[in-house]
Amino acid sequence: MANTVRILGIDPGLTRCGVGIIDLAAGRKVTLVSVDVYRSEPATPLEQRIGSIGDRIEALIRESKPDVIALERVYADVNVRSVMGTAQISGVVLLLANRFGIPIALHTPTEVKAAVTGSGRADKKQVGTMVAKILGLKEMPKPADAADSLAIAICHGWRGAGASAGSAEANSGTMTAAQQAWHAAERAAAAKREG
Amino acid sequence: MANTVRILGIDPGLTRCGVGIIDLAAGRKVTLVSVDVYRSEPATPLEQRIGSIGDRIEALIRESKPDVIALERVYADVNVRSVMGTAQISGVVLLLANRFGIPIALHTPTEVKAAVTGSGRADKKQVGTMVAKILGLKEMPKPADAADSLAIAICHGWRGAGASAGSAEANSGTMTAAQQAWHAAERAAAAKREG
Repeated sequence: MANTVRILGIDPGLTRCGVGIIDLAAGRKVTLVSVDVYRSEPATPLEQRIGSIGDRIEALIRESKPDVIALERVYADVNVRSVMGTAQISGVVLLLANRFGIPIALHTPTEVKAAVTGSGRADKKQVGTMVAKILGLKEMPKPADAADSLAIAICHGWRGAGASAGSAEANSGTMTAAQQAWHAAERAAAAKREG
Repeated sequence: MANTVRILGIDPGLTRCGVGIIDLAAGRKVTLVSVDVYRSEPATPLEQRIGSIGDRIEALIRESKPDVIALERVYADVNVRSVMGTAQISGVVLLLANRFGIPIALHTPTEVKAAVTGSGRADKKQVGTMVAKILGLKEMPKPADAADSLAIAICHGWRGAGASAGSAEANSGTMTAAQQAWHAAERAAAAKREG
């Protein structure tokens, strides 16, 4: 345990909230700990929907003791209605992370897709396929929210490992083709942001 | 205390979050209990901003023991950036209400404005002026977020009183001109929603 980092990835949502936990070991090796999707019914009062998902996330944090939480960053330009619920759940996750004193990082959907597939424009199926391959699973985790939460955790693990273990070059011997593509995509995205 | 209802009104926000408490007594009489604005700095990490505002709201709930919480409903069509923070804080408020078992109601900005001014299109100054008049304050509460939180609480109190005390007609003797205008605006809005 001393040499692994436990990462809780969260794909926030009010109807379906994906929560995936992985352990990251030396050499960027990632293993599945657990994955689940917390659901709430649209007919249920809003405070109960947020309350039940928030309480389940809190229980999961207490049980699994993650070292870090990775959360998908919400954008308001997609579906206006679903985005509000997504933002409300992400607010709850940020509150919980702060209360437990667990570092939390936000990653954009593009960063997450690029991290696991090498392309920031990959579709859901590609992401699911790569998550299964990376974690050595026989099947793609379903629904998509489950696979996405693991993709977010993997994205954070690989970004974090890259950032804390010196240059990307120093690690290139242990990088898969997807990881190398991701690093290239990351550098391109960083250059674009700075430009 | 037995005959009053304590209402906590919240104007959710990440940079400024207005929190106003009023007591509602018989005859729609409302009195100011407290009002404050919780701030956080844009330069502070997001989880700390949400954490600090969330913790202060929780402390306020414990201290003031509201019977009900009234929250402004967030819409995504205004300012995309500020709306995300507003939605995140509203998610935290909904979680807290559920945890404390306190009923929570959401009111649209139009409902709130109509409740205190008689017009759903009133500006900030009009709302502030009416809040001061209704609560018998010498000055308009400032900043606008403070006045808005009290307006939300008043809106809920008067809507709730109207809803629980039989028909609007039965109460018309105790209604001010603004309240009567609000009831008319409400009926029109309800008819429009149903149509």
